[in-house]
Parts: sequence; C-alpha cells; structure tokens
Amino acid sequence: MSTFENTTPFNGVASSTIVRATIVQASTVYNDTPATLAKAKKYIVEAANNGSKLVVFPEAFIGGYPRGFRFGLAVGVFNEEGRDEFRKYHASAIHVPGPEVEKLAELAGKNNVYLVMGAIEKDGYTLYCTALFFSPQGQFLGKHRKLMPTTLERCIWGQGDGSTIPVYDTPIGKLGAAICWENRMPLYRTALYAKGIELYCAPTADGSKEWQSSMLHIAIEGGCFVLSACQFCQRKDFPDHPDYLFTDLDDNKEHDAIVSQGGSVIISPMGQVLAGPNFESEGLITADLDLGEVARAKLYFDVVGHYSKPDVLSLTVNEHPKKPVTFVSKVEKAEDESNK
Amino acid sequence: MSTFENTTPFNGVASSTIVRATIVQASTVYNDTPATLAKAKKYIVEAANNGSKLVVFPEAFIGGYPRGFRFGLAVGVFNEEGRDEFRKYHASAIHVPGPEVEKLAELAGKNNVYLVMGAIEKDGYTLYCTALFFSPQGQFLGKHRKLMPTTLERCIWGQGDGSTIPVYDTPIGKLGAAICWENRMPLYRTALYAKGIELYCAPTADGSKEWQSSMLHIAIEGGCFVLSACQFCQRKDFPDHPDYLFTDLDDNKEHDAIVSQGGSVIISPMGQVLAGPNFESEGLITADLDLGEVARAKLYFDVVGHYSKPDVLSLTVNEHPKKPVTFVSKVEKAEDESNK
Amino acid sequence: MSTFENTTPFNGVASSTIVRATIVQASTVYNDTPATLAKAKKYIVEAANNGSKLVVFPEAFIGGYPRGFRFGLAVGVFNEEGRDEFRKYHASAIHVPGPEVEKLAELAGKNNVYLVMGAIEKDGYTLYCTALFFSPQGQFLGKHRKLMPTTLERCIWGQGDGSTIPVYDTPIGKLGAAICWENRMPLYRTALYAKGIELYCAPTADGSKEWQSSMLHIAIEGGCFVLSACQFCQRKDFPDHPDYLFTDLDDNKEHDAIVSQGGSVIISPMGQVLAGPNFESEGLITADLDLGEVARAKLYFDVVGHYSKPDVLSLTVNEHPKKPVTFVSKVEKAEDESNK
Amino acid sequence: MSTFENTTPFNGVASSTIVRATIVQASTVYNDTPATLAKAKKYIVEAANNGSKLVVFPEAFIGGYPRGFRFGLAVGVFNEEGRDEFRKYHASAIHVPGPEVEKLAELAGKNNVYLVMGAIEKDGYTLYCTALFFSPQGQFLGKHRKLMPTTLERCIWGQGDGSTIPVYDTPIGKLGAAICWENRMPLYRTALYAKGIELYCAPTADGSKEWQSSMLHIAIEGGCFVLSACQFCQRKDFPDHPDYLFTDLDDNKEHDAIVSQGGSVIISPMGQVLAGPNFESEGLITADLDLGEVARAKLYFDVVGHYSKPDVLSLTVNEHPKKPVTFVSKVEKAEDESNK
Amino acid sequence: MSTFENTTPFNGVASSTIVRATIVQASTVYNDTPATLAKAKKYIVEAANNGSKLVVFPEAFIGGYPRGFRFGLAVGVFNEEGRDEFRKYHASAIHVPGPEVEKLAELAGKNNVYLVMGAIEKDGYTLYCTALFFSPQGQFLGKHRKLMPTTLERCIWGQGDGSTIPVYDTPIGKLGAAICWENRMPLYRTALYAKGIELYCAPTADGSKEWQSSMLHIAIEGGCFVLSACQFCQRKDFPDHPDYLFTDLDDNKEHDAIVSQGGSVIISPMGQVLAGPNFESEGLITADLDLGEVARAKLYFDVVGHYSKPDVLSLTVNEHPKKPVTFVSKVEKAEDESNK
Amino acid sequence: MSTFENTTPFNGVASSTIVRATIVQASTVYNDTPATLAKAKKYIVEAANNGSKLVVFPEAFIGGYPRGFRFGLAVGVFNEEGRDEFRKYHASAIHVPGPEVEKLAELAGKNNVYLVMGAIEKDGYTLYCTALFFSPQGQFLGKHRKLMPTTLERCIWGQGDGSTIPVYDTPIGKLGAAICWENRMPLYRTALYAKGIELYCAPTADGSKEWQSSMLHIAIEGGCFVLSACQFCQRKDFPDHPDYLFTDLDDNKEHDAIVSQGGSVIISPMGQVLAGPNFESEGLITADLDLGEVARAKLYFDVVGHYSKPDVLSLTVNEHPKKPVTFVSKVEKAEDESNK
Repeated sequence: MSTFENTTPFNGVASSTIVRATIVQASTVYNDTPATLAKAKKYIVEAANNGSKLVVFPEAFIGGYPRGFRFGLAVGVFNEEGRDEFRKYHASAIHVPGPEVEKLAELAGKNNVYLVMGAIEKDGYTLYCTALFFSPQGQFLGKHRKLMPTTLERCIWGQGDGSTIPVYDTPIGKLGAAICWENRMPLYRTALYAKGIELYCAPTADGSKEWQSSMLHIAIEGGCFVLSACQFCQRKDFPDHPDYLFTDLDDNKEHDAIVSQGGSVIISPMGQVLAGPNFESEGLITADLDLGEVARAKLYFDVVGHYSKPDVLSLTVNEHPKKPVTFVSKVEKAEDESNK
Repeated sequence: MSTFENTTPFNGVASSTIVRATIVQASTVYNDTPATLAKAKKYIVEAANNGSKLVVFPEAFIGGYPRGFRFGLAVGVFNEEGRDEFRKYHASAIHVPGPEVEKLAELAGKNNVYLVMGAIEKDGYTLYCTALFFSPQGQFLGKHRKLMPTTLERCIWGQGDGSTIPVYDTPIGKLGAAICWENRMPLYRTALYAKGIELYCAPTADGSKEWQSSMLHIAIEGGCFVLSACQFCQRKDFPDHPDYLFTDLDDNKEHDAIVSQGGSVIISPMGQVLAGPNFESEGLITADLDLGEVARAKLYFDVVGHYSKPDVLSLTVNEHPKKPVTFVSKVEKAEDESNK
Repeated sequence: MSTFENTTPFNGVASSTIVRATIVQASTVYNDTPATLAKAKKYIVEAANNGSKLVVFPEAFIGGYPRGFRFGLAVGVFNEEGRDEFRKYHASAIHVPGPEVEKLAELAGKNNVYLVMGAIEKDGYTLYCTALFFSPQGQFLGKHRKLMPTTLERCIWGQGDGSTIPVYDTPIGKLGAAICWENRMPLYRTALYAKGIELYCAPTADGSKEWQSSMLHIAIEGGCFVLSACQFCQRKDFPDHPDYLFTDLDDNKEHDAIVSQGGSVIISPMGQVLAGPNFESEGLITADLDLGEVARAKLYFDVVGHYSKPDVLSLTVNEHPKKPVTFVSKVEKAEDESNK
Repeated sequence: MSTFENTTPFNGVASSTIVRATIVQASTVYNDTPATLAKAKKYIVEAANNGSKLVVFPEAFIGGYPRGFRFGLAVGVFNEEGRDEFRKYHASAIHVPGPEVEKLAELAGKNNVYLVMGAIEKDGYTLYCTALFFSPQGQFLGKHRKLMPTTLERCIWGQGDGSTIPVYDTPIGKLGAAICWENRMPLYRTALYAKGIELYCAPTADGSKEWQSSMLHIAIEGGCFVLSACQFCQRKDFPDHPDYLFTDLDDNKEHDAIVSQGGSVIISPMGQVLAGPNFESEGLITADLDLGEVARAKLYFDVVGHYSKPDVLSLTVNEHPKKPVTFVSKVEKAEDESNK
Repeated sequence: MSTFENTTPFNGVASSTIVRATIVQASTVYNDTPATLAKAKKYIVEAANNGSKLVVFPEAFIGGYPRGFRFGLAVGVFNEEGRDEFRKYHASAIHVPGPEVEKLAELAGKNNVYLVMGAIEKDGYTLYCTALFFSPQGQFLGKHRKLMPTTLERCIWGQGDGSTIPVYDTPIGKLGAAICWENRMPLYRTALYAKGIELYCAPTADGSKEWQSSMLHIAIEGGCFVLSACQFCQRKDFPDHPDYLFTDLDDNKEHDAIVSQGGSVIISPMGQVLAGPNFESEGLITADLDLGEVARAKLYFDVVGHYSKPDVLSLTVNEHPKKPVTFVSKVEKAEDESNK
Repeated sequence: MSTFENTTPFNGVASSTIVRATIVQASTVYNDTPATLAKAKKYIVEAANNGSKLVVFPEAFIGGYPRGFRFGLAVGVFNEEGRDEFRKYHASAIHVPGPEVEKLAELAGKNNVYLVMGAIEKDGYTLYCTALFFSPQGQFLGKHRKLMPTTLERCIWGQGDGSTIPVYDTPIGKLGAAICWENRMPLYRTALYAKGIELYCAPTADGSKEWQSSMLHIAIEGGCFVLSACQFCQRKDFPDHPDYLFTDLDDNKEHDAIVSQGGSVIISPMGQVLAGPNFESEGLITADLDLGEVARAKLYFDVVGHYSKPDVLSLTVNEHPKKPVTFVSKVEKAEDESNK
C-alpha cells in the first residue's frame, strides 16, 4: 500500500458511512480513444477489486488534455498545421450520449462503482470539456460541461451553460464536479454547495503546488470531501509536435520529462489530507471517506446554511439552457415535457 | 475535364469522407414538364456515371423560373393576357407528393444519388418555390418551401412557413437548402446552421457577380460546403412574349442573348472555390468535397457553437405550420398524436 | 487622387445626401499610446481637410492589435514572459471614459467629423476590444465592445454584452460598428440592421481576400454602406519578440515583411466597391457616399423590413448589462429608476 | 347638390344619431406631398363647411397609388430605372408619427371632423399602405397597416401585422378601416366585426363594378355603414413613364384617359346605397348616416353575435407586433408597459 | 335557349375542363313529398338531356320552405293551430338516409349527374335544413346541415354542427354548399374555401337584389364558381292559411302574387355572371363552367393561399359531432382512444 | 531584517508601483484600551520608519479577541459571572466615531500611512467586530463590520449588514477587508472582488495551518495581494479566569503557552508568499508589493472579469442598512423619495 492510499480495514466496527474512493492518476493515450477506454477499464477494475465504490478520472481523460499544444495560434494568425491538429483532436472527442458513453456505463455497472470521467465532448463542431457521471447500476446519469475554459482552451473548447450543473443524490453521498479552474470560481462553487455537494470531484489539469491550497480551502469552505484528479504525463505520452511548448520558450523535450505532474489528492471536510498528493507517478490514490465528517465540519461553518447572509448576499443561478437558436415545434414540445 | 470540375481520382489513399457532388446548370424546358423531367434524367445519369453522390438542380428547374415575365401586372392593374400566362405557368407546376415526385424518387434510387431539385409546387391554386430532397434509396425525403419570394415573384408564389426547414442527416453529411435570396436572410441561414448543415445547397436564379461574394461569405460564416445551382438560359429557351423584359426597358431579345448566366459554384468551408463558377454554358459543375474541412474550419469559427453569444442574441424559429384554417376532428387529432 | 479614393467634386449639383467618408489604414505605434494618438490626429486632420465628415480607424488602433503574439500560452501552460507581455499590453490600453477618450473627442470636434476609433479598453484588469464613437460637436457618443473575441484573442480580451450595441442616428446617417469577426455573426449583424444602420463600420484585423466577399455580402444583405478599416503593418511596426508567429511556424521575420495587409474598402448598398481595397500601403481610403442608394437597394431587399419573416424567424437581443455582481443600494436604485 | 350626395335637412325631428359623412374622391398630386396635403386641406374644409363630421380619403392618397407603375420589375429582373422610381416613391411617403401626421391632426382639429386618411408610410426603407385616424380634438388616434398587398404592390409595400387593427369607439360610432382587397379577406373583416365596427371605411384603389357588390355585401354581412373611398385619376395626373401600363399591353395613354374611375360609395347596414357611386369626376360624396340602422339590421343577422356559431367556427387574431428583432432592455420594458 | 342559359357547343376544341351546370329554380309541392320528388325527377332529366353534369336545387325543395308561416308563435304564446301546422310540416320532411334519399341517388345515377338537393331532414322530432349530395354513380355522398337558421326558422329547425361541412373532390371540381344566410357567415365560407371548394352551391330562400351582390362577392372572394338556387313561388303554390304573412301585415294574397322571386344565378371566379339571374319564372338556369378560370382568378387573390395571413388571422373549425348524450360502451371507447 | 520581511531597496530602478506594507502581529492589552492604543502607536511608528505605507492590525486588536472566554454560557444557562465578564468586555470596546477613532486617525496622519485596525465597536449595547480604515491625510475613511460571527462570537457580537462593505480607491491600490471566517464566505469575497480589491486585508483570529491554504487560495482566486493579520498571544496576555478554555477541557494554562499562534502572512496575486507566516513571536511582517503583479495574474484569471459567467451566475449584494426601526420623519421621507 503506497503512501498515496489511506484505507480502513473493514472490521465490524466500521460504520456504514465509510466509502472507499479512488482517483485514477493516469495519462490519456493521445489520438487513440479506444486505447484510452481500455486503459480506463484496467484502472476501474483494479479500483473495484480494491473495494472502491467511487472512481474519479482526471479532466479530459478521454480525448486528452492537449497540454503544450498551440494549434498554430497567435493573435490574428491561423495556419494549416493548427487546423489539422484541431481536426485530429476533434476526431478523438466523443458524442454524449454515444457509443463510448454506453461503454463507460457498462464498465460502471459491471464493476459496481460510481464513475466520474473527464472527457472531451463534441456537439457539432464545438468541443466541450465535460465530466460524465455513471451509476453502479450501469446508467449514464448525466454530465457537467465546464463553464469557462482557461486561456488557450478558449480557442478549442466552448463554454458550458447553467443547464449542466448536476449534483446527484446517491447512497454514498451527494456527488458533483468542478473542472480545473472552475474551482477558482466562487460563484460556481457556491452553486454546488447550495445543491448539497458532499463528494466534490475536481478533475483538473492543474498540477501546481498552489492547487493543493485551493483544494484544502474548498474542503473547508464547502464542508465536503474533495477528490482532485489530475493526469500524470511525461513528454513521451504526447505526440511529437514542432510547435509544442511546455513552460518556457525553450523547454525540456526529453522523453522522460514530466509534463503534467499529477498531485491528485483526497481531502476531508475538516481539511485533513486523506490520500496523496502524488507528484511522482501514474497510479491510484485511494482513501476511505467517513461521511460523518461532513456534519462535524458544519457545526462551525455551513457556507450556504448558518454561515450564509442571504439578506446581504444572494446568488442567482440561471439553469436555462443557452441556445443561439430555438426551434418551436412538436419536437421541442416533447423536449419540454421531458423536462417537467 | 472542364475548369468547372474539381475531382480527385479515387485511389486507395482517398479517405471515406470525400464526397463527389455535381451541380446541374441547365435550363427548364418551358411549358413542358415531361420534357424537363427527361432533361433532368439525362444529367442525373451523367453525374452518377461520373461518380457523384449528390446532384443539385437550380431553383424552379421543374416548372420554370419565369425570368422576364410580368404576368401583365402593374400596380392596381390586371389583364387577360396575364391571367392566361399564369394559368399556363400553374399547369407546369407539380403536386407534392404526386407523379412527378415519384418519378424523381425513382431517378435518385436508380442512380444511387442524393438529389436536390428545384421545383414549382402547386397547393390548390397557390404556387410555391420549393426544393425537393431525394435519397439514393429512392425515397422522397421532404421539401423546403421558399419563405419569402422576391419582388415580382410575390405576385405568383406564396410564402413558405417554418414547417419546411429540413436538414437531413445523411451518410454524406447534413443536407439542406436555401433558395435564391433566402441566402440573404441571416436569420434563415442561422436556422440551417443550428440544424448542423454541412452540405448547404443554394438553388438560385441569381447569376450576378455579387452572388459569388455571398456564396463565399456563407461558406465561411456557416463553416459548410456551399453548392449554388443556377440555370443557364438563353432567350430562345423562353417562350416568346410581347411583354417580356430582361433588364432594361428595351433589352436584347435576340435568340442567343444570355438571360440567366448561371454562375453555379461549389465552395469549401474555408472559402476555397472548388469548382466553377461557370458563366458560359449549360453543363455539370463537379467537385470532390473533403468533409474533414468542416472540422478544420470550425476551429476558428463555429457560428452556432463556440462563436455564438446566446445570452445576448437568441433566435426563435417557429416551425409550426401556418394554416389559415384548422379543422379539429378525429383525423386531425390522430395526426397530432403521431407528432408526439 | 489614388485609386483608393472615390470622391465627387463639390459643385452646386451635388445633393445634400452625399457624405464624404475616409478610412484610415494605418498601424498602431506599439507600446506607445501617446504616439498612437498623435498619429491618429495627423490622419484625422488630413481627412477633414479633404472634406470628410466621417473618419473610421481600424480595430484596436489604440492599444494595438498584437498580431502574432502568443503571450507564452499553450494549453495548460503559462510563463513569466507571457505575463510580462500582457502587463505591457495592459499598460497601453485606455480607460473609457478617460483622458485619451477626452482627447479623441476634442479631435473630432476641432475637425468637425464623426470619428469611429478602434481601441483596447481596460475595465479593471480585463481588456475589451472596443469601438469608440465621437461627434463633430466634440462629444464622446458611446462605445461598442466586441462580443466574442477570436481564437487567441479570447485569452487576452473579455466578451462584451448586449448593453453596448449602439447605432447612432446622426445627420449623416445611422452609424454603428461590428468589429472583425463579429461581421461573421449573422445574429449580431441582424441586431444592427434592426436598429437601422446605414453607415456600417467594420474595424477589423482580417486582411484576407475572403474578407472582401464578406464585406460585399454585408453591404447587400444589410442594404447599407460598409466601411471596413484594417491596419497596414509591417514586421518592423511590431516589437521584437522571440515567440512571435505570423502564419507558418517558421515565418518571415524581415523588417519589411507585411504582417497586416490592410484591404480597407468602402462598398455601397448595391454592392458597388466605391474605394479600395488597398493592400499595398498605409494611407487614406476615401469615397463619397450617396445616401439615396440605401432606398434604391431596399426596393428589392429589406432584411428587417419587407424581406423579413418574423412569424417564423424572430431574434431576441438582450441588452441588459451582464454583471457578475450587482450592488443594490440607494445609488443603484436611482439608476434603476432612470432606466424605466 | 349632386346625385352623389344624400343629406337630410337638420330639422327638429332629426335624431342625434344622424351623422353626416363625406368621402373625398380625388387624386394624389404625384411626387409632391406638400401639394397633396394642400389638396387634402381644401376638401376637408369644404366637407366641414357642409356639416360633415367624418371625412374619408382614398387608399394611398398621401404618397400616391402608383397605378400602372412597374418599377422596372419582371421576375428575376431589376434595373436602374426601377430603383430610381422607387426612390422617388419612397421620398413621397411619410413617417408616422411625423410632420405630415401633425399637420393632418391639426386639420382635423381645426375643422372639427373625424378624418380617415390613406397614406404611404415609411418605416426605415420598407413602405406600408396605411390608414391614419384623427379626431375632431386634433389628435392622431392611430393607424391601420394593410395586412396583405396585392400582386405588384407586394414588391413595393410590406405587410402589416395584427397590432394595427384598430376600431375606435367615438361619439359618432365605432370607426375602423379595411384597405382595398383586405375587404376580400373574410377573416380580417370578421376581426373588425368582432371589434364592433359601425363606420366601416374602405379606402381602396379598386374602381371596378364588382367592387360595388363587395361593398354592398359587406354592409349586409357586417351590419355596418360602408364608406368606400377611391381616387378618381386621369392619365395626366400621373408622371410620364415609358414603362407605364394601364390595362392592356398597348393601353390608352392620352391625357384625359381615366386611369382610376373612382366609384366611391356610401352604403347603409341594410344594403341601401346612400350616396354614389361616382364614376365620373373628382369630388365629394356625402350622406347622412342614421346610426339607428345598425340595430335594425342586426335583428336578422349579427355576424359575430346571434348568427355566429363559435362552437364550430372560431377565429383567432394575433395582435402581437411581429418584429424580426426584439431588443430586451429598459426601453423595451417601457414599451411593454404602455401596452398593458 | 333562354337568356338564363350560357352554354358552349361541344365541338372538338372544348377542353375537358368545361362543365355544364344547371340550377333548378322551382317551387316545392307543399305537403306532398312524393309529388315534389316527381317534379325533381322531371327537371333532372331535362337538365341531363341538355348535357348538364351538375344539377342544383334550392333550399328546402323537399319538405318546403314555409315562407310566410308563423306556426301560431308570438313571444310567450303557443296555440293548437301552430302545433298542428308543425305536425304537418314534420310529416313532409325526410329521414337521411331513407327511402327518399335512395330514390334521389337512383335519379342521379340514371341521369349521370352530380346532384345537390335542398331538403328538410328529420332526426327524431327535430328538423334540419339540409343539402344532400349525390354522385353520377348513383351514390349518396353525404349532407350538409345548415349551421344557423334565420329568425323564425330558429323555432322550427335545429342547428347543424361541424361534422357536416363536406367538400367533395369530384372529377368536375370540388363541390360543397352554403345554405341561405350561411352565405353571410365569413367564417363558414372560409371553412369551405380552406377545403378547396370550386363549385360553391348556394341553395337559398333569399330572392332579394342584395343577394346578387353577395353571390358576386363570394365568387370573387372565394375564387370559385357560385351556383345560387332559389325557388320561384307564387301565392298559389302555398297552402291557404289564415295566419300567413308575406311582407306587410296586409300583403298581397292574390294567387299570382310572387312570393319567392327566384334570382338563381351562376357566376364565375372572376365575377362574371354566366347565367341568370332569373326573377321571372320557374325554369332551368344553365351555364358552361371553364374550370381554368379558377387558376386565372387565383393569380391575383387566393383567400386561403397567398392572400391569407395566418400568423395574424387563424380560424379553427371544430368538426366533432355535437351530441347531448354520449353512451360509453366498448365501441365508443375504442373511438375515444383513437382520438388520443 | 527577519525572514518575515521581504523588501526591495529603494533605488532609482524601482517602479512607482512598489508599495511597502506591514502587518502588526501583536496582542491586545486586555481590559486596557488606552494601553492597547499606545502599543498600536509604537508599532505604527516603527513600520512607518521602515518605509511602510500600509499598516494592518489583527482582528479585535482594540477591545480584544476574548479567546477561551465562555461568558458563563451553556445552552439554556446564564449566570452572574458571565454577565460581569461581558460588562468588562463592553467597557473596552469603542464608539465609532469617537475619541479612540480620532486618535487613530491622527496616528495615521502623523506617520503618513494607510492604517487598517481591528476593533470591537459598541453601538448601544451591541458589539460589532469591526475593521477601521484611516488615510495618511489623517482621515477616518470608514469601517467594515463583520457580517457573520463564528460560534460563540454570536453570543457577544452582532451581525454587520451590507452597508459597510467598503473598498477604497487609494493611490497605493484598492483597499478593503474581510475579517476572520468572512474569508471563507465565497459570496462576500466576490463582493470585494467586484469592487476591484487589490490590497485584501484579512484581520483574523485563526492561526491554523489550514488558514494558510485559504489565504493562498484567495490571493489566486481574487488576483490580489492578501495581508492576513493575526494576534500572537500567550496565556499570560489574557486575564486569569476560572472558566477559561483553550482547546481541550484541561488545557495548558502555563504563562508561556501560546494561545494565538499568529501566522500573519503576505501573499502575491500569483500565489507567491512574500512575507511570513510567522508562528513564533510578536512582531512586524513586511513586504514590498509590486502592483504590476495584479495585471500579470489577471491575464490568466479575472474572477469578476473575463473568467466570470454572469449569464449563469450572478450575485446580488444588498447594501441597504438594516434597521429594526425606521422613523418616518421629514428627513427620512426625503431620503425615501430619493430612493424611488
């Protein structure tokens, strides 16, 4: 058992509120979605065999987080290489729902786990950075689309809207997700808090030391378990590309150079680091979550409860889908009804 | 192979996303719908033999675009000659569905092509300028009625409604049409974009040089292939008529005078002219469409995706049929149900 | 008088509806906003001396369009150089209102022209790509913030909202602006058309040949004069930068290399090119606009009038300012009241 | 007193429900709106001096009904002459409200009459065929825009919507209008009947004998007074034009040829012709309307009352303004409120 | 051939769209239905021998139109005589279907005509004023029950519902009927127009001059042939009755006095009177209908096609049978379900 | 210069955007407000002599943070000793404004610093935990009252309202404060961000390790400098008290035991710790703040600018004073009216 694991032996004393959860800190197989799915399967099976009931993957695990890619972009500049790069990237993305989503639902069902999977979703020709949720009953529960991409992501991903901010009330706790720097958005976090989130999944591509502070802060602020999942990638995991940039303009392009250092971590509502952070290798990060900690933490601070001040500070969340074009017809009506 | 053709030899390298498409730039046989259908057949066979999977005809190919006709009209003025002219024109129009539609479906099936055909449709005594869609399986897929006729067309054609704005999701791409100056209607185009159009057919009667700019703009704006089909007609293709007017009040009535100069053209989503424009003769305009170009183009601009701004600008499309009279009866109710 | 100029001698015959308009095709003095203002002054004086009543500058003339800059960005990657680059860029931007805006208002007043100026506006630490409007009376009329930046612009500029979509009803016609690829947004253009725009200014950074097609299309679609203003810049106009990229990954970095080729152009509502495009040099592009052309064009096509189809296609424009935080206080209430 | 006048001497017996009404059968002064207004003034004064309380002018009296004009139009054909013709026609049209409307309101007030005036209204560059209503108090009451132009009118006029179907409840009876062939639209007439119209004004350009049948039918069908006003014009009243067409292709172009033969008529709810029709000359048609006739007629037939069959036949009138673009902002809100 | 006849000799030139139609202007044989049927037979044979393909009888030809009868009614007053009068009137009415209907079907078949017959239908003890339709194949096609009786008719006839508004699509054109003042109901007429009526039969009891205006108006409004059939009756055709009233309280009771003056008429879609009106005698009114006239007329005006305005004005027709009592049994339930 | 200090020598190179700031990590002199003020003066003078322009004191420095006090409270239990304890505590609190506030203003002026001072404010008999702001010009700028006290604080302090959430725009940056666990309130922080806070002062009583994570997170989230000031107190700094409780029920009551461990810290907008945290001793923590860091940080993340999503997430801050009783008098009325 590595230092990145914190589990409790299942003896008779263990209360039913203990949930074993695993983060998969691993790299996408770039430009090969079937191989990425196979890799996902391997880790889900391993986590399930270890007793986990919740498995969380990093941001963009399916489709890939194109770290260091520039898509040939400069302000006001486009080129053929960038467009081809995008076409390949678009090809690795998946439709939601679609065959890959079905496969993941089947995996969750067969391994009897809740599964939170980071994926690049394609809707027409716009891509979204999405978290997918699956139940142990083998069902696709729904999705969250990242609201606001960061810097160069804005050139390749669209913006989500308020209609995909789910928090699922499951037997192992209330489950939702904030992707990468959405974790820096206080209003978005507050929306999740208001929906009662207890298992706060944070699929991310941010492997910095500062990220650890944010995760710890959020656990305390939200009074929830935080499960931050980040890919561990080396230069060799990425396709070769002449325009590739890691940090500095002439950065390390050796095969073993670490490009995404991971740092996946599990933190309790009281701010206790339960497992991780792992900054060294691909692998699983596992901890047993005592759900009773949520109540213990809220005695002192309940961000949307006794410690809110709604007569002064009130947040409005617009959950209507934002669509540039609305077709008013029978089909639309049918949709409306399914929304009721 | 003329300059109006841009095809790629089918070698082993060609990806499955290459679709050969042909525009038929030809004139209606006026006042003779059976002869017009025979002419359509000739060109469809020729295009299919050349490997085309999509054949697009100009606006009003069946029934005819009565360029230069005035139907004896002046403001507040009617006469016998105009009425007779209309009666003849009405006689050349077709019912949808009806025997001519069946014949066209059969042609599409036998030649294994998607077929987009401009036709004058009669519904009672009101005529519509309609685009008909057919599948390689020999099925009539449906139709689009032009929403808004232009100038004098308003005296002979009715206005379509929102119930016939189809975009068909076919194996060769999403297929739809905008007829003539509908291409100038930004809201109509946006409705098509929102339905994901990739093969944007533009049957038209506008053979101007400015039209080329609009086609190029639309290809870029919509990130789609644009296939603009216009008739090439000479004065002799039209019936003689004392009140005929081409451009100026005393215009050229010589037999060889070009009355509709064509200009059919095929443009890629990046704004590259793939075939045409042909301003010189009747004939086929053919190009190989690399559907991967759509994704490449959308990296930079996705008009209803990442480049839309739905919180500020939102379009509503009313797809309900507009009927002056609705009969509420058992049959009608059954129809309603089949719509759910 | 160069080929880029199309003016009518002011003799007694000239009707009062002729308006002389000038586009300034010139480059920003990078990282030196006072020098850029001085350059603006020089050209405004020259245009006014030539009889112009409307002077239009390119996108981001003040503050600069950082073509080829990459701000050290790659997906998921940041660095010191990029941040410093942004800090410098932020320093060149201006507050609106603010001292530079006052200076421009004074220039417009002294030279008796309507002035449309592209500028980088700073609001806190978020930048906006803005068009500023000034009257011959020396007043700052207001601004339009670009709604949706393009590709890498999204990493350095914020998004405007619906509260800055002005069209000013001036004695020389209704004046408004769409910046760069906003010109590709059919719903945004329709909002301008609905406000009656007649002098459609298109400050841009797109100097491509395809752009010309879009401008011509818009003139016809909107039935308005289009005045497209683009900077003409050479490599030497830009600060040296190791990460600079023009088009290809190893592009031309010689001092005389053309980096922004201009292509400023003035087009009539009938689609006639009145002046330009100039792809060769810095300079003024001038034409005399016969406002009567608008009515002539609308006979056939009035995009928000007789050629609209509002029972099927209706656009909603949300003009409310979008603010993440609203402070409700006495002052705020007073504002609310003035809104009623 | 001509045969076109039917007035009752004001003796003590006359009940207060007798209203003297006058139709002005006169021609527009083409291309000269001030002169047309002067002519209107002359006739209003004359009618008022004769005791009239209601004065009705023909369709398009202001701006003109361009009978025989073709605007250079043929199907798919445009030309310079046509555009210039439209520009001139557009110039003669008026804004509503606007200075001409103010002048007419003043005229109604000074002469103490209700005034119904046919006018060509310009809204941007789309024209509408409009009826304007004014009160004896010198107020502009509102307008009705013709819903559906006829044949070639569709090329020069836009379509009204349901928001301008007024019936004004005045001391002299309920006053509204149907313009020209709107009188042939059974659903439009039913909308007016449902609003209780008693003084049914029918400004028209139809001087045919069949028109008389329609007027008589409507008086009976609607149980209302019908006041049909049509211009009397000779060829010399129109500007010369090479493309002019009256009825036949080689029609009479002599100066005295009658181009619009008038036929203005006033009919009672029982189908009695009270004054007119005058097919011979310009002039006033005057009758005394006994409003008690309305009740007498309704005993037998009340089209929207006891003789309707709403369980079987029900008409829906959509009175929402149809706008292609709606701006949601403070101003819009204010408008909404004024609509409540 | 009387002036009431307008027929075209059948030479080789006559197109197949010419249909000869005959109106039978004759009086019921009161209180003797078999004799009335015999009279009907005589006229049908005569019309058929003259080449007619369509024969139209007046309102209530079978059973009789009891003009001048009062049924002993006054407000709040009943008496024995009136009840007996009704009992006799009821006895002359027919069941539909029933033996008289079979006889009429046979007559139509033998004479190879379409037959439209006015009849008083009895359903239990309620009478309906009905039009019956028969085919040349000897089939009873169906019926139309008058929706709304006029004045005193309301005391003896019931109201029809929306389930009997047929328009039959026959080889000689689309055939339907509006009875008497149903012709004044704009919504009912619109229902017929929406079903495409081309041969608009108007069995009536209105022999006024004003009626002619309505018929002409309807032909133009509907763009259809109008065939108005009215009885020609003298005083002697009616049974003697002390309470009889024609127009005035002491009216002409001489045997030759004309009580119903006929005025049957046939009018073309362009408003041309083809035959009649005959105000003088019993007899046949015959005309040749050129069905091509319908298309010619619709060029200018198509009341439910290009000249409708369904976004503003929409009519709903409820065609469900209205039944005071519904028995819910297995069969009924099955029907109900098919409605869902 | 201790490790808790990070200053830049003032040479000619230093840009004007460098501001030296000092946190005073020191303990209140309990129950002796004049002595506490004298201690404040000593540290302010020292910081000013060291070049500081901003001096920040901990929460409740004046009046004292009564750590370990219980005020004789248990649920449903009160006693005399507790009441006396409160009476003493109330006596140490100050009026705002008042003589102590004047003294502090004078101190700020004489030492030419911005001063942020934690104080217990008394308003009647309710106490508030307040931050006071003073300018180098010797002016009292205003105050912020803590919105929500934590656990037992709720028994001795009242709640602030929205009328005291100031952010002052000073020459050294925009200055405001969040007190103690207000720093855990995402909506309160967002209100400060929206006011543009750059110098985010966090007077606190939380000396935990987790607090450091929150401070670092806020610096990054807000893109601002964070200055967290906490008292360093030993047991001997507190008055003796039998009911005193530190952490455990029998905790360390030795004189040197650390009761409040400090941890004051200064962090940059990029998340760099500039000075501190000091967990060891009373003393000054000083750093030079390069205000240019704000722009650099905002390139990537601007929480209320380009990284907000106001169409989905919008916060409303009610800044109205909350008063239990409102006296409606002339003055009050005038105020009310100005609010309308």
